[in-house]
Amino acid sequence: MTVQKTKRLSLVEQVTMQIEYLIESGYWRVGDKLPPEPQLMEQFDVSRNTLREAIRSLVHLGLLETRQGFGTHVTATSDLEMALKKKIKKSELIETLEVRLALEREAAQLACERRTEQDLLDMKSWLDQCQAAARAKDFNEFIAMDIAFHKSVVKAAHNRMFMELYDHITDALEQSVHELLLMRTATHRAYDIHTDLLEAIEQRNVSLAVASTNHYMKVAQDSFAATMENKR
Amino acid sequence: MTVQKTKRLSLVEQVTMQIEYLIESGYWRVGDKLPPEPQLMEQFDVSRNTLREAIRSLVHLGLLETRQGFGTHVTATSDLEMALKKKIKKSELIETLEVRLALEREAAQLACERRTEQDLLDMKSWLDQCQAAARAKDFNEFIAMDIAFHKSVVKAAHNRMFMELYDHITDALEQSVHELLLMRTATHRAYDIHTDLLEAIEQRNVSLAVASTNHYMKVAQDSFAATMENKR
Repeated sequence: MTVQKTKRLSLVEQVTMQIEYLIESGYWRVGDKLPPEPQLMEQFDVSRNTLREAIRSLVHLGLLETRQGFGTHVTATSDLEMALKKKIKKSELIETLEVRLALEREAAQLACERRTEQDLLDMKSWLDQCQAAARAKDFNEFIAMDIAFHKSVVKAAHNRMFMELYDHITDALEQSVHELLLMRTATHRAYDIHTDLLEAIEQRNVSLAVASTNHYMKVAQDSFAATMENKR
Repeated sequence: MTVQKTKRLSLVEQVTMQIEYLIESGYWRVGDKLPPEPQLMEQFDVSRNTLREAIRSLVHLGLLETRQGFGTHVTATSDLEMALKKKIKKSELIETLEVRLALEREAAQLACERRTEQDLLDMKSWLDQCQAAARAKDFNEFIAMDIAFHKSVVKAAHNRMFMELYDHITDALEQSVHELLLMRTATHRAYDIHTDLLEAIEQRNVSLAVASTNHYMKVAQDSFAATMENKR
């Protein structure tokens, strides 16, 4: 095993890590404005230059945004989120979709083993709201509730790293393909497929869970391909 | 669809992005030393301060390392890699292992559809080297060739995003669990399982591919649990 050399952190690095920690732990949330400079300088016990440099490196990471006259705001919660967003922007959409669906199929299988009663209640509640939105033909709401349902399936796998990867990829995808999804999603069909998935997880039936995610994937990929075809 | 405001990039951001691009594209590789400051200032046509600030933000991202008297070196190829490494450091090992194995099982299925003749040759070559290392009882070599084999399976899925996530997670894991793996890996058994997997992918047999990754996962998880138990 290689021995890691102890590395002395510069003051800028220390402040940067402290700010990152305050954001990742939820003390400062997305949209929050940071306190004024003099207050932060006192809080971290550093000079203006050190503070500014720390903030600039977090702006570059994408966690903060500074606008003249508006102060500094939190724009994202983690650098993993930002790195995935950048990567997704540069990748083929179909590749990202495939990774997302792969994570979901695996999570559904783990959820069969690990789901609690509370997980089932959550999933059921999102599905009910999906159905209500479909009936009301409120497509934006339908998509939001649909995404919440998928996230709750992955949550039921009880693996935080899985969940973070899935959530970040889903959010980044949602921003880029929202309209595509909107055009194509056959809302009532998606609802049926998801009911199957919920039942499979409730009954701890792994093969049914895999079959229903496979079915859902096929529908999603076909409509994506069809949309792409139409766009040509 | 929300309209993204056009954002004017600062000079520092522009230089930062150019350096990032030179690293990601492989023009500068991990371990390379950056040219001296005056040359970079001329190349990017910026002041010393601007250049230094760009370099500092890449040091914070983890792509560069600056040491007094040694200049600035490239330490990683992408911020996704660094963000995943940081996340993995903070996560439970068993959760990371589970994500890695999930990606691999999915990739093996895609590889059944998409593998080329060249992919099969690559996989076979890594396996042969695994076997040679096992015979020579060269465990470090065995692990290196084993990891190369797994990466070649994921490569055969022909999805770059899949491959990057898998490679970064595998490398980060390898650094943290190298010794654990070393202690426990029953080399000849792993070799048998991998032969099954290669055959499955060659025959485009999805269910056999899933069965052999499941088998491999069970062996890995059991030995991990046993090692953890012994460490208590």
